[in-house]
Parts: sequence; C-alpha cells; structure tokens
Amino acid sequence: MILGKITEKIAELFSEIRAKKPLVHHITNYVTVNDCANITLAIGASPVMADAPEEAADIARIASALVLNMGTLNARTVASMLAAGKAANEAGVPVVFDPVGAGASAFRNQTAARILNEVKISVLRGNISEIRFLAGLHAETKGVDAAESDMRGTASSVALAKELAARLGCVIAITGAVDVVSDGEKTVFIQNGHPKLSELTGTGCMCSSLIGSFCGTAPHIPLEATIAALLSMGIAGEIAYEAAGLRGNGSFRAALHDAMSLMNAEIITRRAQLYEA
Amino acid sequence: MILGKITEKIAELFSEIRAKKPLVHHITNYVTVNDCANITLAIGASPVMADAPEEAADIARIASALVLNMGTLNARTVASMLAAGKAANEAGVPVVFDPVGAGASAFRNQTAARILNEVKISVLRGNISEIRFLAGLHAETKGVDAAESDMRGTASSVALAKELAARLGCVIAITGAVDVVSDGEKTVFIQNGHPKLSELTGTGCMCSSLIGSFCGTAPHIPLEATIAALLSMGIAGEIAYEAAGLRGNGSFRAALHDAMSLMNAEIITRRAQLYEA
Amino acid sequence: MILGKITEKIAELFSEIRAKKPLVHHITNYVTVNDCANITLAIGASPVMADAPEEAADIARIASALVLNMGTLNARTVASMLAAGKAANEAGVPVVFDPVGAGASAFRNQTAARILNEVKISVLRGNISEIRFLAGLHAETKGVDAAESDMRGTASSVALAKELAARLGCVIAITGAVDVVSDGEKTVFIQNGHPKLSELTGTGCMCSSLIGSFCGTAPHIPLEATIAALLSMGIAGEIAYEAAGLRGNGSFRAALHDAMSLMNAEIITRRAQLYEA
Repeated sequence: MILGKITEKIAELFSEIRAKKPLVHHITNYVTVNDCANITLAIGASPVMADAPEEAADIARIASALVLNMGTLNARTVASMLAAGKAANEAGVPVVFDPVGAGASAFRNQTAARILNEVKISVLRGNISEIRFLAGLHAETKGVDAAESDMRGTASSVALAKELAARLGCVIAITGAVDVVSDGEKTVFIQNGHPKLSELTGTGCMCSSLIGSFCGTAPHIPLEATIAALLSMGIAGEIAYEAAGLRGNGSFRAALHDAMSLMNAEIITRRAQLYEA
Repeated sequence: MILGKITEKIAELFSEIRAKKPLVHHITNYVTVNDCANITLAIGASPVMADAPEEAADIARIASALVLNMGTLNARTVASMLAAGKAANEAGVPVVFDPVGAGASAFRNQTAARILNEVKISVLRGNISEIRFLAGLHAETKGVDAAESDMRGTASSVALAKELAARLGCVIAITGAVDVVSDGEKTVFIQNGHPKLSELTGTGCMCSSLIGSFCGTAPHIPLEATIAALLSMGIAGEIAYEAAGLRGNGSFRAALHDAMSLMNAEIITRRAQLYEA
Repeated sequence: MILGKITEKIAELFSEIRAKKPLVHHITNYVTVNDCANITLAIGASPVMADAPEEAADIARIASALVLNMGTLNARTVASMLAAGKAANEAGVPVVFDPVGAGASAFRNQTAARILNEVKISVLRGNISEIRFLAGLHAETKGVDAAESDMRGTASSVALAKELAARLGCVIAITGAVDVVSDGEKTVFIQNGHPKLSELTGTGCMCSSLIGSFCGTAPHIPLEATIAALLSMGIAGEIAYEAAGLRGNGSFRAALHDAMSLMNAEIITRRAQLYEA
C-alpha cells in the first residue's frame, strides 16, 4: 500500500524531471565526473560542476540540488564543499552527500565528519563500509569499494539505515547488491541491478547524481526521489546487461547510458523490485 | 561565391591537419577533458593538457594553438590561463577562448573579463548566454547551458557576433541550434547538427578543441578554421544520430567519436549547410 | 626457453589477479583517469585515486601498488607523489612511474628527476622520447607523444632499456609500435598492438595502470608483471581493431574495454608475440 503510493509518486517524477530540468551542482571527483554529467543529462536534469571556493556558494544558491562527492577531495574542494553546503542550506537547496572512501584515511574521515556537522544533508548515500563507518561502527575499508566482510546481508543494513536516518534526520541510502533506503520511518529495499555494475567505475557516483537530479525535482520528498534514482540505476543496469553485458565492459557501459536516456515511468513501474523492509 | 571559396579552403584544411598534426595545448575543465583529447585526436591533431602555472607558458610556446576553457576554473588554472595566454600571444600561437558559464558567478565573470583584457584572443566560442553576457548585455544564465529566454533566433545572434567580433578584433562563434560565426566583416551561419548533441556533456567544449585544432593548422585564417570545426561537429552529430541516435545516449556518444574520426573534406562538402548571413 | 617460462608465469598471473583483486593507488592525470580506473577494473584489480598530500601516504600504505603518472601534474600532486612514493617504499608497495611529457617543460623534468631521486621505482614506463630524455640523452619532445625523429627502431631501444634498467635498478618499459621491456638482465620485445591505439588518448596511461595491477598481484616479479600488462594492452588493441576498428574511434574504444574485460591466459598464450631481445 505504501509501496503503491511510492511507485505512483515515482512515476510522476519522471515527467516532472524532464519538464523542470533541474540544475544539479556537483562538487565531485575527477575520476567519474564525466559519467555523472552524462547520467544527469540522460535522466533529464542539467549538470553544473564548479569546485572553486570563489564561486561554490554562488553556484549552489542558483542550483536546484547540490551533490557533494568525496572521491578525490583536496583542501580546495573541502573548503568549497563546506561553503556550498552552507549556502545550499540557507537557500533551501537539498544536499546529497556521497562519502566516497570514508574510513580509508584520516583526511576523509575528518572531512566527512565536518560535512555532517556543518551541513544539513537531505540524502546520504554510500556503500555499507562507508555508511557503517559514518555510523561510528567498526568498518574495514578497502579503497572505495565495500569490503567483503561487511556484506552481511540486508537485515543489518536495514537496522543501520533506519537508526542513522533517525539520528541524522535525513534519508540514508546504502547501495550494494540490495539497496536499502530509509528516512527513519519508512524503510524499503530494492533488488534491481546487476553484479556487472560493480565492474564499472562510477556507478555509485552516478547514483548520487541521479539522487541529486530527483531531489532537485522534488525536494520535499527526498525518500521517493532517492528511490526513483536507485530504481533507475538498477533497472538501467539490468537492461544494459541484457543488451550488451556479454560483449564486455565497454559495450555494457555504453548500454547503461543508453538505457538511462530511455528510462521512463512505464519501465520503472514494470520492472521495479521495491519492497517494504 | 564567398561561400564557395570558404568551402574550398575548408576542404584543404582536412588534408593539412592530418599532415601537420598540430599540438593543441588545452587548459580546460576536468568534466569533458577526455572527450576533448579524443576529439582532437579524431580530427587529426595532437592534444596536450597542462594547467600548472609552473609550465603553462612553456607548453603554450611549443604548441600550435592554445584552448582556454573556463568549465571548472580555480585560482591555479586562472593563473595558468593568463600566463599561457600571454606566452601564446608573444609566440604568435592562436588562442581560442571558451567562456563556459560566463554570467553564472562573479568569479567566472571576473576571470572572463581578465582573459579578454590581458590576452589577445583569435576565436571566442560560446553559447548565446555566454556571448551575450560578455558583450555586456543582460543575460540570464542557467548553469552552463543557454537559458531558453535567450534563444531569440539567428537574427540577433548575427548582429551580436558581428558587433563583438569587430569590437574585440577576433572571430566570434555563437553555437546552438544554428551556429553563427563572424570576424566582423564576413558572417556566416551553419545549420548542421542535431538536438541530440545537447543531451551529451562536452559538445561545446569539443567544438572549442576542434577550433583549436584547425587554428593550429591554419592560424592565418581563423574564420575558415572555426567554420571547419563547427561543420565537423554538426555533421558528425547528424551522422551519429542517423547511426545510433535512437539506441540512446551511450551509443550516440560512441557514434559521434566514430563519425569525427572518419570525417573528411568530401563529407563536409557534401553535407555542409553553410550560409552567408 | 626463457620465454616459455615467462609465458607460463604470465598465464598464472591472470587467475591470481582476479583472486587477489589488488588495490591500485593512482596519482594520475585528469585526462585519462576514467579510462585508467575502468581498465584496472576490467583486468580484475581495484582502483583508488587519491592525490591530496593530506592522505596520499595513508592510501599508498594500504594499497597493493602505486602508480605515479605525471600527465597533468601540479604543485599539490607533485607533493603527493613524493609522499606516497616514500610511504610505498617503506611499506614494500611496488611503485610504477609514468613520466608523461618528460622533456616538454622544466617543471616536468625537475619533477621526474625528483621522483627518480627520492622514490625507489619498480617499473618505469614511457614512450621512447620520455625514456630517452630521462636517460639523459637528447630527445625532441612533442607534447605527450613520441616525436617521430625518435622512432629509430627497436635496436637502440633495447640498448637504452637494458642500460637504464641496470642503472636505475628497476624494470624499464618503452612502449610504441614495438614494446621493449628490460630488467637489465633479461630483455624482451612485444610485437602485439595496433596503430589505431595511438588514435585514442590514454592508451599509455592505461598500460601503466595495468602494470600497477599486475605488480600489485606479484610484486616480486615486476618483469613478468610488466610483460603481462603490455601483452594485455597490445592484444586487446588487436581484438578491438578486428571487432570495431573500421567503425571509428568511439566504437574502437568501447571494443578495447570489452576485450580487456574478457582477457585471459588462453588468449594471451595464443596471441602473444613475445621475443627475447
């Protein structure tokens, strides 16, 4: 019943995003930034990347959403993330935070802590290692991918997402083989996607860009916006695998962007594997 | 008649560029830099990206052309753009300026103004919002894309390009659904291209890289070099759409690079929609 | 006989890399970084990019290999390369150095010299211009590609690789139409590959990422690791050309990533053109 309403709302978001074409300001890493820009365009939003402290706040204020991604942070971009985050908060612009590699270095840990302390986040998306680390639990971190010892099934992820969402007052999205999304009250999991997605760099970052794109469309319903984004990526991954997965990673990547650019409410509704936790 | 001569000249440029393989120094953004490098190679030139103040002038001096692109500027790259621009001017190396997002922040506006004041530009390429802003007119800027209220048809673009070209003493290229190019005396418009190009990031940046590639081949005829570049991108977009447009954005992107790497004088001559303004 | 043993060892590396999934820390350029991350994943390793001085040493210590690539260096990344390189040396993590554009500017030359003086390198990979420059010989450098006047056949490359390997106490890999690899005692050349590879940006950088991936798998046999990497790229280039070369650069690029993700010991053994020098 709840899921019925959510699916209906999500279907609406697909026409809204293309009508509104929200401007999504990214302060993000240089590894996957091109994929983030292209996936933002594919879903119907408009990307802008600007990471200089001299302009980060100015751009955040005119944006519909702000995505902060720690992938390749440095002193300059940390300053810009904080300035942009605060400006976004003042202007009522939703902020999506992707704590790439949290747990991997003191610098990343301190930066993530500062962002969570100084900026009001609407959606926090990471893999289980990153989210577990941010929740203050022990987490083994292996670079930017989730350590395998942290793959302990959906049950503990659900509890973690729910607790952290309530504590931080934001939506938590833990992405992996199964995605878990919670706002502290409602918690869902998504079983779309394909293992092949983990063979491409940037699929996590692209999820965050999509969340920013949908939050920029409907900032008042961040849970639904996040679910719409993760369904889009998971289902695009399935379609891409069917179309080109066996041909190899280069074809799969092109097919992923193909599928995202053709994504719509009908495909989402038909293929969504969305369950209440 | 004028167009006949231009088309003939442009046809020659396609054999010249592959023979000369000009080195095109880019100080550009990290969003689309990979596309810029690959498109430069596809058209037959050789890209080099170097944005440290410690070497920007050294590299500019040994290059055949310099492309300054403000996409993701910061304090370091602004210093490098100015140093490289001045070195290029001293060495007689043509400078292409792409004022991405001019009008979107004070930092961008000041940087664009400094570059125009301190560096002699051969070709200035932007969308109508950016060029209008630089011309000192009122422009609504929505991120890095042209605001829709600025899409007022070709007539005002022609007047703007002509006037600004005469004032700045350089070639002005306003790209969009219709491209307008002027050196203040001759003004042309190009009706090649496909709307699908606006669904990919970097098509504007790639135009600037192509302009740099052709200017590096024939620095004495920047108008023809600019037209050759914009015809190449527009026609490659058409061919890519015919080959793969309906398959989606990933396939369209690969097909765009395919088409550019197979571009030649015969295709250009046959498909060019080039008109005197 | 020697080659027989090498080929056998290399075949083993293909199953080891996918079992171990080594973490490969890159401090690299923003032009080709996405290709480097994706090729690292395609071969079965795990990439992490981190270039801030605040964390470069921390990340290097937890990595299986470190790749230093000078493509777009700046003051920050130079400091990070030195800090990460020293930390890697202390932790016994092998370091691959790609001196992109050595010879093209004083800044690059000084940086390359500092890295070679202060960091113990396991594998040094470059084109003939770069390696010749580092060997202290006169080299004409044209941007990041090998100047044509330096293409003087394999014989002088073999002598250069052998001498420099002995002098620096590391593996030297000179890549080009024919690749030459030497550890000062054994020297081989590889005749796989396709000229089309030079029409894509980043094929050299990807070679260095692959070397890092194999060195992270088997740090005690850097010669074999380097050969495995260069065979992979050369053979993937051949397969990609056969599959899509005539369709153009975009399709060829996707096919290259396809071929790398399907690479295995059987393909390598069957297609390797590996000869003792």
